[in-house]
Amino acid sequence: MKKVVIIGGVAGGASCAARLRRLDEEANIILLERGKYISYANCGLPYHVGDVIKSRDALILQTPEAMQKKFKVDVRVQNEVVSIDRDKKVIIVKRLETGEIYEEAYDTLVIATGSSPVRPPIPGIESSRIQTLWTVPDTDRIHALIQKQNIKKTAVIGGGFIGLEMAENLRHAGIEVSLIEAMDQVMAPLDYEMAQILHENILQNGVKLFLGDGVASFREENDRVTVTLKSGKAVETDLIILAIGVRPNSELAKAAGLSLNVRGGIVVDDTLKTSDPSIYAVGDVIEVEDFVSKERTMVPLAGPANKQGRIAANNIAGAQERYEGTQGTSVAKVFDLTAASTGSNEKTLQKRGLTKGKDYESIIITQNSHAGYYPGAVPMTLKLLFSMDGRKIFGAQIVGRDGVDKRIDTLAVALRMGAGIDDLKKLELAYAPPYSSAKDPVNMAGFVAENVLNGLVVFSDWDVEHKHPDAVLLDVREDAELMAFTIPNAVHIPLGQLRSRLTELDRSKEIITFCAIGVRSYNAARILMQNGFTNVKLYPAGTRFYQSVH
Amino acid sequence: MKKVVIIGGVAGGASCAARLRRLDEEANIILLERGKYISYANCGLPYHVGDVIKSRDALILQTPEAMQKKFKVDVRVQNEVVSIDRDKKVIIVKRLETGEIYEEAYDTLVIATGSSPVRPPIPGIESSRIQTLWTVPDTDRIHALIQKQNIKKTAVIGGGFIGLEMAENLRHAGIEVSLIEAMDQVMAPLDYEMAQILHENILQNGVKLFLGDGVASFREENDRVTVTLKSGKAVETDLIILAIGVRPNSELAKAAGLSLNVRGGIVVDDTLKTSDPSIYAVGDVIEVEDFVSKERTMVPLAGPANKQGRIAANNIAGAQERYEGTQGTSVAKVFDLTAASTGSNEKTLQKRGLTKGKDYESIIITQNSHAGYYPGAVPMTLKLLFSMDGRKIFGAQIVGRDGVDKRIDTLAVALRMGAGIDDLKKLELAYAPPYSSAKDPVNMAGFVAENVLNGLVVFSDWDVEHKHPDAVLLDVREDAELMAFTIPNAVHIPLGQLRSRLTELDRSKEIITFCAIGVRSYNAARILMQNGFTNVKLYPAGTRFYQSVH
Ligand SMILES: Cc1cc2nc3c(=O)[nH]c(=O)nc-3n(C[C@H](O)[C@H](O)[C@H](O)COP(=O)(O)OP(=O)(O)OC[C@H]3O[C@@H](n4cnc5c(N)ncnc54)[C@H](O)[C@@H]3O)c2cc1C
Ligand SMILES: Cc1cc2nc3c(=O)[nH]c(=O)nc-3n(C[C@H](O)[C@H](O)[C@H](O)COP(=O)(O)OP(=O)(O)OC[C@H]3O[C@@H](n4cnc5c(N)ncnc54)[C@H](O)[C@@H]3O)c2cc1C
Ligand SMILES: CC(C)(COP(=O)(O)OP(=O)(O)OC[C@H]1O[C@@H](n2cnc3c(N)ncnc32)[C@H](O)[C@@H]1OP(=O)(O)O)[C@@H](O)C(=O)NCCC(=O)NCCS
Ligand SMILES: CC(C)(COP(=O)(O)OP(=O)(O)OC[C@H]1O[C@@H](n2cnc3c(N)ncnc32)[C@H](O)[C@@H]1OP(=O)(O)O)[C@@H](O)C(=O)NCCC(=O)NCCS
Repeated sequence: MKKVVIIGGVAGGASCAARLRRLDEEANIILLERGKYISYANCGLPYHVGDVIKSRDALILQTPEAMQKKFKVDVRVQNEVVSIDRDKKVIIVKRLETGEIYEEAYDTLVIATGSSPVRPPIPGIESSRIQTLWTVPDTDRIHALIQKQNIKKTAVIGGGFIGLEMAENLRHAGIEVSLIEAMDQVMAPLDYEMAQILHENILQNGVKLFLGDGVASFREENDRVTVTLKSGKAVETDLIILAIGVRPNSELAKAAGLSLNVRGGIVVDDTLKTSDPSIYAVGDVIEVEDFVSKERTMVPLAGPANKQGRIAANNIAGAQERYEGTQGTSVAKVFDLTAASTGSNEKTLQKRGLTKGKDYESIIITQNSHAGYYPGAVPMTLKLLFSMDGRKIFGAQIVGRDGVDKRIDTLAVALRMGAGIDDLKKLELAYAPPYSSAKDPVNMAGFVAENVLNGLVVFSDWDVEHKHPDAVLLDVREDAELMAFTIPNAVHIPLGQLRSRLTELDRSKEIITFCAIGVRSYNAARILMQNGFTNVKLYPAGTRFYQSVH
Repeated sequence: MKKVVIIGGVAGGASCAARLRRLDEEANIILLERGKYISYANCGLPYHVGDVIKSRDALILQTPEAMQKKFKVDVRVQNEVVSIDRDKKVIIVKRLETGEIYEEAYDTLVIATGSSPVRPPIPGIESSRIQTLWTVPDTDRIHALIQKQNIKKTAVIGGGFIGLEMAENLRHAGIEVSLIEAMDQVMAPLDYEMAQILHENILQNGVKLFLGDGVASFREENDRVTVTLKSGKAVETDLIILAIGVRPNSELAKAAGLSLNVRGGIVVDDTLKTSDPSIYAVGDVIEVEDFVSKERTMVPLAGPANKQGRIAANNIAGAQERYEGTQGTSVAKVFDLTAASTGSNEKTLQKRGLTKGKDYESIIITQNSHAGYYPGAVPMTLKLLFSMDGRKIFGAQIVGRDGVDKRIDTLAVALRMGAGIDDLKKLELAYAPPYSSAKDPVNMAGFVAENVLNGLVVFSDWDVEHKHPDAVLLDVREDAELMAFTIPNAVHIPLGQLRSRLTELDRSKEIITFCAIGVRSYNAARILMQNGFTNVKLYPAGTRFYQSVH
């Protein structure tokens, strides 16, 4: 009888155990978890803090008892693995309640130890009012602090998805929130201009936003913690949530001499085997291949962890299934908005040395979530990055209110399946007025990208003032629309009048066309380009986007 | 200067005109439309009847004047093309307001005449209280009838998507509805068992449903129309909406000697040229290739019509773009549900002579729209059809409340890009609790399909009583769940107790396992199969589905 020991009992570990049992009723499967809980919904924790998910029980998908009964897995919570003896094929385990140490032999070992939130050595970091949210007990602690300690002001350090979810949920619980982020933007997977749409909405939701300003120190005094930022600004709080990143829980693997990468990620082959053929590793703790760049990277997400757990189980049961890399598809609810991305962003392409216009192109468009004439249609802004020959999609980002998750999934599948721009045009997506438009936003992205590659249209930079200081800004919206918002210093000629008023425009100048979302201004650009104007550009995603980024 | 005449000014025609203008500012583009309106939202019309779309203006995307000004297109509404003289390259046009006839020459002609609702020669069909809904004037007429004539009872003939949308909107307007359908199910793109979920909800919404019962005759008397069905049943109504199918508006093409198929669809090559190289045809009026079967077919949908219009424009402007077939992705809101499909259904596969278990396999699963612990998660039922080697997806159908449109699009892209089962497993879809689960329903479909192909699990027929009359039905849900619903004659052993109670089951019998959605019962099936039970099957999609189909 094969003996399989799994270290870590949540996403990767529990999935691996469940699948393995279905494949092999006889295997002796032991699941070791240092925490009190297995198989819980990490991803739901922020929502329990905000009471959006009211039931704490709902977050725990399997109790140790249930897992034991349903899957015949020997589940041992509060059992921490302290070392691995690869030669003897045993692990050393500590029973945390008693302190007792014991050995457990394995035929195959699975390391699914996940990652932990980073707590950098900033002065004052040891305060008990500086919390991280990672586990059920963390959530209980934060929940209790909020309910019992009259928490009114919090600071969330870190504008990644966990920080943003926490900010939203704390606001939901009626608490003041300052969001502090060292970079000049939240949500690193987005490019700067796309993140600006989030910044606008975060501010509208009453969060104080500190961007481009790292933490210099914390100071606790009288139940309050003051955060001093590098800029010298001070933020007073009752509670701080630290969410500035994760590091892999790979101490065990390191001590056992398994190959790690520089960031501490366990190196695995494409069957998820570590450098020791008896040891698999899955989830946040491993290094994976970036599906787009084929470089080695680390992507701590639940989807990949679950899938890897299943693949490891298959391989332990005798398959030779390969894990073919992670493209980093992700989505987050950020107050009233949804932000999603897949593949590489432009920052990453540039870091890899790729140049816009030479190695890649990009578009930003606005489109409605569904047919504009059906109630509830709301705009989304979509950025697409692709190769100059149109054959490869590098990545996509979408920010909007509704239908964002659908379009990122459409694009994620396209990217995964090796689609090019031409394929996006042809995708036959489901259309009825409540759900989409006859040309779905993803089709539109294909059309627009093709137009860029064919030179039918050229986009301006979103930062027109700095990048195109001498350009004529031509607003082609109708008169009535100008009442809501006007672009400073723009010339105004409604699209329907453009052909008859061409003489009002200076052909020697760069002209940048604007409308609300970019469709009429595109038609305007085509009219100008076909009437002898040689330097015409289209402002991406229209005045809506202009407003978000200005 | 090239002269392009387009016949038909809505989806295919208007799109073609707009794109062509953007490619060629100089072309002389004439758009001829026999109706009063161009460029309107056919698909929105049912929702205007139900006052869900309140503004009639919102349905008209471009007026002739706006189209003229913005696109420099010579738009002529109420101008009906009455014949095509291919030798002389002229068309004969009738000005409907004056009756005047004139000739118009063309270099290139585009036929985008769409389709019309079928009005079969049933006795009594000529009543003015039997309406079809196809155009803006149709909508105005029905709207006016409802508002002014005190309509209380209606019958909708035809359970396709237009009939269903009309039924929903009439109910929305507070009117009694009888839905009459000659087939034994509504929504032909779905297989029978999937349509049953719709039937359940249609009935719950107070619609009287007559299935498998065609219309024998109509009789108008005193402002009422009585429908007599083939079964002899009579339905009294104040108004009837006929929505039993469409036929292509190809009379012009036929008279001009262009190649048509047996159903009257215009035959085009893959660049959308008809048998006359100066004439293109697009939209509902043409025959297309079925993307899955590669057979010739007709798919009257707006997405294909719009895309074809754009491709024809590109080709008229000198490109050689190919239209690569229609997969028939569609979606409809049906009361509280969404029903969607892509590719072939099982009926079609069988009509093509394919046999289940030999040429194709199918699965039906239930999964939640998003993580069960986040508020608002609702189940969807997904059917997937695929080849025995797992390399080809034939089609998919989904019925549910939320997230259905997203999953059908994911699957539509996968199908389009040639994905196999293995690819579905690997798709990296966006996960956060409000949007999906770590294993998205589409991934799950991949896992389950693989399990079927590998023999890890065998599904029973949904119709257990008839197809498996001697089987033991084994319900593995928890005690508490049985209070809500019990399966007649089922044996009950909760999953967690199964291993210890195996002796209670007869190994010589066929055993069919049940739980709420199919996951625990799958685990139960694995336990049985690995413990020497040789004839174990899983009831598809759980007791929820059982209830819908029973
Ligand atoms: C608040 C929060 C929100 C998130 N939201 C999302 C989201 O919306 N979408 C998404 O895709 N991802 C999200 N994630 C990330 C996702 O939860 C992780 O990627 C996933 O859980 C990783 O799975 P894993 O099995 O590698 O690690 P984990 O699920 O973290 O499990 C590792 C387990 O190993 C145990 N362990 C570690 N060392 C030992 C040891 N020596 N002995 C015994 N046990 C040990 C740990 O106690 C832990 O329980 C979120 C994470 C958090 C914390
Ligand atoms: C009520 C309703 C709801 C729908 N809902 C959906 C949906 O939700 N999703 C979906 O994908 N599809 C839907 N459709 C189908 C979709 O609208 C059609 O597939 C699409 O409009 C076809 O485009 P077309 O250009 O071929 O034809 P049309 O859009 O019908 O345009 C053809 C035009 O040609 C004109 N014409 C015909 N003959 C002549 C002539 N001899 N001279 C001059 N003009 C002529 C007609 O008057 C008509 O205006 C719906 C259709 C209807 C009626
Ligand atoms: C709870 C847990 C142990 C369950 O593991 P699991 O049994 O593999 O997963 P699920 O319950 O999702 O079920 C999936 C299985 O059911 C099958 N299945 C799903 N729906 C089915 C249906 N309707 N009919 C038949 N089979 C179905 C799948 O094929 C899969 O089986 P397979 O892997 O053998 O192919 C594991 O998912 C877990 O611990 N999750 C919580 C931790 C976590 O993921 N955290 C991060 C995200 S918040
Ligand atoms: C109104 C109508 C004439 C517009 O045609 P259109 O201009 O081709 O279509 P849209 O307004 O959707 O715009 C699409 C164009 O804008 C471009 N575009 C879309 N969003 C853009 C953005 N944000 N920035 C730049 N360009 C953009 C697309 O690339 C496309 O141009 P292309 O075809 O030259 O590549 C036509 O769609 C129509 O008549 N529709 C109503 C009828 C109908 O479809 N009925 C059935 C469904 S209810």
